[in-house]
Amino acid sequence: MEKKYVIGVDIGGTGTSFAIVDREGNLICKGNKDVIKTQAYPTPEEFTEVLCRELKNLIFGCSSKIEEIRGIGVGAPNANYYTGTIEYSANLPWRSVVEIRKMISDKIGIPVAITNDANAAAIGEMTYGVAKGLKHFIMITLGTGVGSGIVIDGKMVYGHDGFAGELGHTRSGRHEGRACGCGKVDCLETYTSAKGVARSAVKMLEIYPDVPSIMRNIPPDQLESKHVSEAAEKGEKLAVQIYEETGKILGESFADFVTFSSPEAIVLFGGLTKAKGLLLNPIKEHMEKNLLHIFKNKVKILVSHLDETDAAVLGASALGWEA
Amino acid sequence: MEKKYVIGVDIGGTGTSFAIVDREGNLICKGNKDVIKTQAYPTPEEFTEVLCRELKNLIFGCSSKIEEIRGIGVGAPNANYYTGTIEYSANLPWRSVVEIRKMISDKIGIPVAITNDANAAAIGEMTYGVAKGLKHFIMITLGTGVGSGIVIDGKMVYGHDGFAGELGHTRSGRHEGRACGCGKVDCLETYTSAKGVARSAVKMLEIYPDVPSIMRNIPPDQLESKHVSEAAEKGEKLAVQIYEETGKILGESFADFVTFSSPEAIVLFGGLTKAKGLLLNPIKEHMEKNLLHIFKNKVKILVSHLDETDAAVLGASALGWEA
Repeated sequence: MEKKYVIGVDIGGTGTSFAIVDREGNLICKGNKDVIKTQAYPTPEEFTEVLCRELKNLIFGCSSKIEEIRGIGVGAPNANYYTGTIEYSANLPWRSVVEIRKMISDKIGIPVAITNDANAAAIGEMTYGVAKGLKHFIMITLGTGVGSGIVIDGKMVYGHDGFAGELGHTRSGRHEGRACGCGKVDCLETYTSAKGVARSAVKMLEIYPDVPSIMRNIPPDQLESKHVSEAAEKGEKLAVQIYEETGKILGESFADFVTFSSPEAIVLFGGLTKAKGLLLNPIKEHMEKNLLHIFKNKVKILVSHLDETDAAVLGASALGWEA
Repeated sequence: MEKKYVIGVDIGGTGTSFAIVDREGNLICKGNKDVIKTQAYPTPEEFTEVLCRELKNLIFGCSSKIEEIRGIGVGAPNANYYTGTIEYSANLPWRSVVEIRKMISDKIGIPVAITNDANAAAIGEMTYGVAKGLKHFIMITLGTGVGSGIVIDGKMVYGHDGFAGELGHTRSGRHEGRACGCGKVDCLETYTSAKGVARSAVKMLEIYPDVPSIMRNIPPDQLESKHVSEAAEKGEKLAVQIYEETGKILGESFADFVTFSSPEAIVLFGGLTKAKGLLLNPIKEHMEKNLLHIFKNKVKILVSHLDETDAAVLGASALGWEA
């Protein structure tokens, strides 16, 4: 039987999404992203059990046959393309090394390929998104954490062990001593992820106790980046300043990233990009300010147009063809 | 006539070296590196004139024929593999954009390929040195400046414009406001090049005015890294501390570099490596301390065994085969 489809699975810290995708990149059938709450499964065995059951339901519900599925591509934090394992992920409930490729493949009988979620997003952008036609770019996902996928000469950079491109855990250039999920302090993601922005907001509210803000209506431990976004929409200066500083930190880091692989573009993805100019302008300004002469005014900052969930699932699915 | 040889040319901030090399990587005939003092030629035209005359002399003196030379490979600061130009080099006497590939090729009638000197060194290590057999490594040259060449999947990373891998101009994580030749401040090279080490020494001697040191015999503006090395050999604590801090800065940066491309090794080259454990131990310690769990105890720090001049010339010559 002709293998017409692949399945893309995006294992996230909160939910796990999945879909059946055809050769043109159309999402034929999508799993409900609320179906699998990743954190609800204390062991990878329980998780895989439910995932594979849901995948079979999806195939059946989609009136397709398991024989028509060429492969399954999985994107997950700390997933290793070479070994097929998820190793020591800070954002998933399972510690140590999880043989996720083998576990899924054994249960469902279809070849599986995996990579980290940010790499999957990069592949998605390259195949269907704003990075179409680009041979050299760096994908930066600004989500719960900060992920990255590096493409050089049209190919994903996996490095010698499959773990290349963890740019969210490079130095932010800031020294507040913010603890990172990875065990280090002051990683880029502690300042520039959605969580990082919320932490910056808590700090700003402390530094300026007399400046009124709707963000003060939320208890500090419940403050999220969406509250910063709401405050910014109302034109609050504090919120604008938080984006300004976040953009500065990202821009300074991007200058270093450009110095490494000299990409045509840095592609941004994730909820924070909805702040548009509030975040993008300081990013561009401080990236340019810190670039070597030879790199100035060359590197585009692009924002993904793909739906947040679809990008990761689409990217993961693309791996399914190679599985 | 069979093309048995290539020529390697290494254009350095101080001197320009060159040699005829055979297919096995033997330096058949070498130009005297004192022959061409790069700084003595205020224009690239004068420089190229002399270089090409000396190259013809070398070929003649070597009893070989110009028809036997397959190509010329040139390594130079800020040299661009794609365009064949040297652009805005901070360490050469010529500013703006120099069409060096065309200028040499027109004068001598042999195809020329160029790349930056650190990339050439990386190619040399990969072909004849400690990086033989490695598919993923980062070359760091600790010379007048700090250069780098990045190899992924066995291939040099040039980036979309040919300028990838200027890691000497990433952030050092230090904030003394040290001016860099590139126009920025506090670049990695302002602390960890030979010059950077001398600058650190001057600062240390100021901070500890009462600690005796043979380094005080040299006027601060004439202090060089070799004086630090001499003091360290005599067991002076100040000198040891300078290496310790230099190694710490490098180690912290290396941790970020590993996070980018996940190499098997970082290969060091240059006079500073003669400090051996004094520099290498803090590099390893602080790199490991700052690595993500998934990268720990995996990345080798290797030191080049090649002769300082030969490595760059050999590497450059390897490009000659592709010219």
